[in-house]
Amino acid sequence: MRYDIAIIGSGPAGLSAAVNAKIRNKNFIIFGNKNLSTKIEKAPSIDNYLGLYGISGMDLKQHFVDHINSMDIEIDERKITNVYAMGDYFALASGSEMIEATTVIIAIGTDSAKSIEGEDKFLGRGVSYCATCDAPLYNGKEVCVLGYNKESIHEANFLNEIAAKTYFIPMRNTLKNDMSDIDDKVEIIENKPTEIQGEMLVNKLNFKDDSLPIDGVFIIKDSMSPKNLVPGLELDGEHIKVDANMKTNIAGLFACGDCVGRPYSYLKSAGQGLTAALNAVDYLAKKDREK
Amino acid sequence: MRYDIAIIGSGPAGLSAAVNAKIRNKNFIIFGNKNLSTKIEKAPSIDNYLGLYGISGMDLKQHFVDHINSMDIEIDERKITNVYAMGDYFALASGSEMIEATTVIIAIGTDSAKSIEGEDKFLGRGVSYCATCDAPLYNGKEVCVLGYNKESIHEANFLNEIAAKTYFIPMRNTLKNDMSDIDDKVEIIENKPTEIQGEMLVNKLNFKDDSLPIDGVFIIKDSMSPKNLVPGLELDGEHIKVDANMKTNIAGLFACGDCVGRPYSYLKSAGQGLTAALNAVDYLAKKDREK
Repeated sequence: MRYDIAIIGSGPAGLSAAVNAKIRNKNFIIFGNKNLSTKIEKAPSIDNYLGLYGISGMDLKQHFVDHINSMDIEIDERKITNVYAMGDYFALASGSEMIEATTVIIAIGTDSAKSIEGEDKFLGRGVSYCATCDAPLYNGKEVCVLGYNKESIHEANFLNEIAAKTYFIPMRNTLKNDMSDIDDKVEIIENKPTEIQGEMLVNKLNFKDDSLPIDGVFIIKDSMSPKNLVPGLELDGEHIKVDANMKTNIAGLFACGDCVGRPYSYLKSAGQGLTAALNAVDYLAKKDREK
Repeated sequence: MRYDIAIIGSGPAGLSAAVNAKIRNKNFIIFGNKNLSTKIEKAPSIDNYLGLYGISGMDLKQHFVDHINSMDIEIDERKITNVYAMGDYFALASGSEMIEATTVIIAIGTDSAKSIEGEDKFLGRGVSYCATCDAPLYNGKEVCVLGYNKESIHEANFLNEIAAKTYFIPMRNTLKNDMSDIDDKVEIIENKPTEIQGEMLVNKLNFKDDSLPIDGVFIIKDSMSPKNLVPGLELDGEHIKVDANMKTNIAGLFACGDCVGRPYSYLKSAGQGLTAALNAVDYLAKKDREK
């Protein structure tokens, strides 16, 4: 089974892409959180979403939910850790599972979290972005979760069932209220890591004036670096480079929303999601004609 | 008095640009029709404006009107016929009147109307897009209005007060119901023009198997060709060439919406309008710092 379009991300860009894939009757899948983005809930009043003046973030989110529910669009919660361009199609990895799609739309947003020294270097060699994907590799080992969001707490609890020892570092003050959900056996470290070290594999997490011997570091944040998601993807600074049609440097791969650059705005993202989807549809039609 | 931002067009792109110029507290002006776009009213149901599923064109338009009314945004109905880049600012011509702005956002939409042979060649030499601007030049002369929209009927009536003789050619079937509004003295021609001819100035309008001696041809449509609006503007086919930030080849001049290319969609246009406005704001800030 190969999808026409795989959409990664459930913010306004991803949702708008899904709406248009649906309208154009494509066989598509959208990966993200059923709860959409939690960022949007926090906006007290949004004035620049044309047609919905002075709407609260909560209400705008409900409008989005109603829209996709009306169109029977379901969000798949599997986490995509890698996208590989296979020439004629793309292979999306979710842990050991592979999903195939002819086109891919990346709408992963942006994360203000800076990467930690050693994060890129040791990715796949002790650094992971997905506990449910990679936990089996750490059976009986010691791991540390760097938590940026609520999901990271559940990931730590899950890892704790498999690993010999699980540490958790809250990387955001906003997590304070949720720390009671964490397993008693998970050890909480109130210190900021500065570097991930190792030789072939990760063996140490450093702090300003301390260090922790460790086998694996799980970095759980809302968005991952696009360069780690798709090998060979051309960036412009920290953003994915696209043209006005939301095309990246890889044929069949589109990107939209915050991950392609400023301004960061719901309306801009939604518009770009539409553009990405319709260009993916064009790409599919052209591919069909060439057969 | 020089505006920070002048926006040309009152479709979703122009309105969204105006909303964001207002939020950013800029001294701006928006040119267009108080009645917004009449195209939008005709859509029975719009499914791809994220957050407003299954809305009618009439209702979506009302949402836009409510939005700009809530923000006290007024649309200026003067017709802009030319934009000249003066180096440090832009001069916008409305007939003989000149309006100055540091940045300009073009959101003029697109017109499916093909230009008529001779239209570009004789622009300013007997061809005009604006009766209220150029009527005085045709005092006592014979003119013909090629009408694409309701406004064209009023323009013909207005010309008829000044010109010795006014002809009107309905270029759209949709005008049929409005023909009763036209002055009795205006002569209606039910034939499609094929070419505008002349020497230094226009002197003839040709039809397939007929011709009409004439001094002036007024082409009244919703949107004009961007290349006629702004000398030196770089195009990509019939669309204005922009980058992902909605920048054109002219510094300080931005474009957004249908006039920059497909897909033609309200949501895409609105998103691009926001992007254009915020980039105009950045441009103004940078100019300020350089002082």
